Amino acid sequence: MLSFADNEMLTRTGEGTPMGTLFRRFWTPFLLSQELPEPDAPPVRVRVMGEDLVAFRDTRGRVGLVEPQCPHRGANLFWGRNEDNGLRCAFHGWKFDVEGRCVDMPCVPNGANYMKTIRLKSYEVEERGGMLWAYMGPPEAKPTFPAIEFTMLPASHVFVSKKLQECNWAQACEGGLDTAHFSYLHMAVSASEEEFMKTMSRADASQQFQRVKWMKDDGAPRFTIIAHDAGIVIGGARTADPGNTYWRISQFLMPNHGYTPNAFPGESYHGQTWIPIDDHSCWIYCYTWNPERPITEAERRKYAGGFAVHAEVDEKWIPIRNRSNDYLIDRVEQKHRSFTGITGVSEQDACIQDSQGWIADRTREHLGPTDMGVVQFRKLVLGAAKALAGGEEPKAAGAPQAYAVRCGGAITPDAVPLADVMTQRFGSPTGRYDAPSPQSTEGVAS
Amino acid sequence: MLSFADNEMLTRTGEGTPMGTLFRRFWTPFLLSQELPEPDAPPVRVRVMGEDLVAFRDTRGRVGLVEPQCPHRGANLFWGRNEDNGLRCAFHGWKFDVEGRCVDMPCVPNGANYMKTIRLKSYEVEERGGMLWAYMGPPEAKPTFPAIEFTMLPASHVFVSKKLQECNWAQACEGGLDTAHFSYLHMAVSASEEEFMKTMSRADASQQFQRVKWMKDDGAPRFTIIAHDAGIVIGGARTADPGNTYWRISQFLMPNHGYTPNAFPGESYHGQTWIPIDDHSCWIYCYTWNPERPITEAERRKYAGGFAVHAEVDEKWIPIRNRSNDYLIDRVEQKHRSFTGITGVSEQDACIQDSQGWIADRTREHLGPTDMGVVQFRKLVLGAAKALAGGEEPKAAGAPQAYAVRCGGAITPDAVPLADVMTQRFGSPTGRYDAPSPQSTEGVAS
Amino acid sequence: MLSFADNEMLTRTGEGTPMGTLFRRFWTPFLLSQELPEPDAPPVRVRVMGEDLVAFRDTRGRVGLVEPQCPHRGANLFWGRNEDNGLRCAFHGWKFDVEGRCVDMPCVPNGANYMKTIRLKSYEVEERGGMLWAYMGPPEAKPTFPAIEFTMLPASHVFVSKKLQECNWAQACEGGLDTAHFSYLHMAVSASEEEFMKTMSRADASQQFQRVKWMKDDGAPRFTIIAHDAGIVIGGARTADPGNTYWRISQFLMPNHGYTPNAFPGESYHGQTWIPIDDHSCWIYCYTWNPERPITEAERRKYAGGFAVHAEVDEKWIPIRNRSNDYLIDRVEQKHRSFTGITGVSEQDACIQDSQGWIADRTREHLGPTDMGVVQFRKLVLGAAKALAGGEEPKAAGAPQAYAVRCGGAITPDAVPLADVMTQRFGSPTGRYDAPSPQSTEGVAS
Repeated sequence: MLSFADNEMLTRTGEGTPMGTLFRRFWTPFLLSQELPEPDAPPVRVRVMGEDLVAFRDTRGRVGLVEPQCPHRGANLFWGRNEDNGLRCAFHGWKFDVEGRCVDMPCVPNGANYMKTIRLKSYEVEERGGMLWAYMGPPEAKPTFPAIEFTMLPASHVFVSKKLQECNWAQACEGGLDTAHFSYLHMAVSASEEEFMKTMSRADASQQFQRVKWMKDDGAPRFTIIAHDAGIVIGGARTADPGNTYWRISQFLMPNHGYTPNAFPGESYHGQTWIPIDDHSCWIYCYTWNPERPITEAERRKYAGGFAVHAEVDEKWIPIRNRSNDYLIDRVEQKHRSFTGITGVSEQDACIQDSQGWIADRTREHLGPTDMGVVQFRKLVLGAAKALAGGEEPKAAGAPQAYAVRCGGAITPDAVPLADVMTQRFGSPTGRYDAPSPQSTEGVAS
Repeated sequence: MLSFADNEMLTRTGEGTPMGTLFRRFWTPFLLSQELPEPDAPPVRVRVMGEDLVAFRDTRGRVGLVEPQCPHRGANLFWGRNEDNGLRCAFHGWKFDVEGRCVDMPCVPNGANYMKTIRLKSYEVEERGGMLWAYMGPPEAKPTFPAIEFTMLPASHVFVSKKLQECNWAQACEGGLDTAHFSYLHMAVSASEEEFMKTMSRADASQQFQRVKWMKDDGAPRFTIIAHDAGIVIGGARTADPGNTYWRISQFLMPNHGYTPNAFPGESYHGQTWIPIDDHSCWIYCYTWNPERPITEAERRKYAGGFAVHAEVDEKWIPIRNRSNDYLIDRVEQKHRSFTGITGVSEQDACIQDSQGWIADRTREHLGPTDMGVVQFRKLVLGAAKALAGGEEPKAAGAPQAYAVRCGGAITPDAVPLADVMTQRFGSPTGRYDAPSPQSTEGVAS
Repeated sequence: MLSFADNEMLTRTGEGTPMGTLFRRFWTPFLLSQELPEPDAPPVRVRVMGEDLVAFRDTRGRVGLVEPQCPHRGANLFWGRNEDNGLRCAFHGWKFDVEGRCVDMPCVPNGANYMKTIRLKSYEVEERGGMLWAYMGPPEAKPTFPAIEFTMLPASHVFVSKKLQECNWAQACEGGLDTAHFSYLHMAVSASEEEFMKTMSRADASQQFQRVKWMKDDGAPRFTIIAHDAGIVIGGARTADPGNTYWRISQFLMPNHGYTPNAFPGESYHGQTWIPIDDHSCWIYCYTWNPERPITEAERRKYAGGFAVHAEVDEKWIPIRNRSNDYLIDRVEQKHRSFTGITGVSEQDACIQDSQGWIADRTREHLGPTDMGVVQFRKLVLGAAKALAGGEEPKAAGAPQAYAVRCGGAITPDAVPLADVMTQRFGSPTGRYDAPSPQSTEGVAS
């Protein structure tokens, strides 16, 4: 439960808000690379944390992210011609480069000096892991790009997607960190094992009846949290076969990234990043990666059709099953086969998160022991926002290597503490692995 | 004409408003029984007087009407599983019974004591006359269920429907009480009797050319009002054949029920109840009953297709001809065959009531003698709301037997006063008939 | 660039605003004549400068423009029956004539005296040039109808249309007066002359490759302004063949009319009038006229399909390519054939004007020499609005003959000043031609 004031602080990310200011200290994905697929591709409208922007890729492949209104008469540059290393306004031909400089002003004779006084607001852009990232904060505070693993792998080892979520970013993020709900929200209820596993076929545990059964049978996992410089490890322990514990361990990385707890050794990892469009909706960037092998074509098709964190979306990345159509809930399916009657793990998450309201009211909650991850997430981001408001820069922004972490599932004898489980699996209690430095990223996915 | 303040008081029914407080002293229909057709049927979203609620029918057939947000994390219980005598939240499995008690909390180990501290707001529900009724007021003021006739008859003798109306409840209710407008709004204008009666085929007077003709020929009926403990009798007198008067007598019953003036002896009665969704829309519950005989299958089909108070609606009870499509007005039809060019008595009413605005502005009216029923309705409900605000409980809520009234049409010699007309027809000036007491309702429509 | 206060004054036209008060000193088109095609045609909803009204043509052909709410109970007269020289309310039959007088009150016995006290607000209407015009100001200030040329010609010589524009009137009007943008917004970019001219086929210059080439090659025309009693002449000079200047000269006429600069001698003239619906949208009335010959059927078909100022519209005069569908922009077309990728001169204008926002923010502009016409337009209308607020009636309203002006294109030797160009072409520096007086308009277009 939060105070009204803390709930406001957690959820508002517009310019000048404490959380918005914190978010703007980090690199922020704003498009998939494939949304600007080639040099001189059509410009794209972008809305990030309440700011309206336009993005374009110029003739040399560089990407600009600039304010949309032409300084001349205020026409929107989204309608502009993207030509010869600049975006030209369709009204009177003023032209701007990716850094927002005015480079042509054909309706003004001898406009060279006037031109120099005109500049669009623009944000620095990096292209990593199949996504376009902007830095929207003060230049002097710009951080080194963090060692988020999927951004450092070859494109062959990564699959990315995005999906619209029609509620505030924070409750969607909390849903991603709350691994207890798998025992309910994502669970099949069928009597036969065959039908049960068919109903679970879009969950990553789908091939592992045993794991799903442990989750179904133990709906009250015990949580342990381990803090590190980039975020927190959230470990949930369930009873497995006698004498053993089934661990599902996730990561939250500042300020808005979450990794899922599914991956056993050798399996692919999944993660999500929640980027506010405004305070009532967000884009969720979704990524699957495998440091050991390429993602196969069959897997890519499966993910693109809706699997694990990836939703089934239309050509504008809007989920097919969404708020406007009640997620195509099937009440007969709910009665006989699944807890929700809604198809898709991602869609089940979206439904329940949207149902908390456009902005969840955390002043009326009644939290319990399984909400420990959610509580720690709130403490972490609210603490960092308040600290920054007091002049203290966020530690995570200054610790790019601390992002080189992994997490996943494990089966251990009972009574092995989380720190030991992590150390055995990854070599460190925080999930830190021996990462290549971000400097050595040439030739990798972009 | 009302003052601005009185117009506000008449039309606003949210929690804490004077009219909303008055309404909450009475039993309020919130769904048709058929919307929760069987035990463990899918839950249904309900919005009554600005309150968002969720309704469900449990395994034993009892109906709950509760606040929709799960106290745990605020997920909406509409998405819940309705199973084994309770509604279970789809997020983490908290479960609630029809009275709002938390009966399971599977994600909290040893949660039995915690569970007892958790309770949803819930309203008491009665099922009568094919409808579900809630009492939304303070428990100590709960009235005995009123002797509304259709709620006390066998299901075979009753037909019920509902329809969305896209304006404030009060102007819709006034339209129902204003019987003068039949001479205009619902009238055919065709020259030939055959075409005339075909155009009138959805009005209950359709088989009675004589009655329609009297209404057409006398567009300025003379009104008499008789007050009683549950409401008012509104009698409108028109010139019939020489020396005779055609009476059309309706009832308004506190705080939002109205009976139509059509029924001659042996004919079926119609009524409507106006339930605010919010201040800009309402559900109108419609009912036809015949105390003497069952409603036939042919009549049920006719009513379901749009007849008298019943609109032609889609599967969500939205009228096919509505505000968004200009009621499919046919201007050629209007020129040659009907006063409005709109098909359906109910739809003609809806059009003209909607056209008064989302909330009618009663400060600019110019009332005349035919508006006497409307004026008396306003006095009655405003008076009761003001009295209740001053601590005086509404008389009607304490007089359930006073609802056992009827009304209808009559032809009498001129100069017979309304009280005598009512006494001759029903045995009492107020339309009170010898009703079975509400205690003897076992085995009747539900 | 304007101050915030001046931008507000320029753009707001509701009742009581300075600009709204100024507009209400002039005749205002509110419908095309064809929208009320015959006596007793169906009434039509009208919204002008934020005022909701209803228009109807009575049995004798006269047109009424009245407030829509019936004074009796507030039902909307749009649903009324238009019969026998009056509009009859569908609720209880009150009837009103085109001047708003109540002429029948059938539900009130002996209502003759009561009737005299009831009157709808109504506006005086004139029918000219295939349009219906209202005077919405104080009666004592009513101006003589101005000598706008197309309103004084036979119907055969005129083509009229209208189109919805989804932004404030002033930026749409400015777009119409800004003739510099033709070199960009409306320009083809194809390499071959054949394809180039095909792309330009909806522009009036389409048959004149030379003119288009001059516009393409000189994107920084030099402007001269000549003021007169009804408005301003805006002359834009481009380099033509060596030693010659290509003039494109337009007219702005108070308070919201603009003529295009295309017409060479013998060619047809085009004009537009911007009428606010509210502050976020407007109807643009479009007209083409030729004082020397009838408009042919082939030309009418071409205009109706979208040509020059005329948009391609649906049966409700909504442009087919509009804000809601991104004007059906074709980015491949934009790359290879046209500056915008949008089909239609009018649609290109609409796109770029809408893109300035619902109301353009003129406080952030950076104007240049080609914006001289826009600057003078603002000075003129803001000056008149401020003067009127100070008690000075607008000069243009008192100078109906000053509207008898023309404008168009010309090729002259370099260094001939605008005043001489106008005098050579039209006989006067202001474009004034020898007009018939407005009194002699019988038998002309209506």
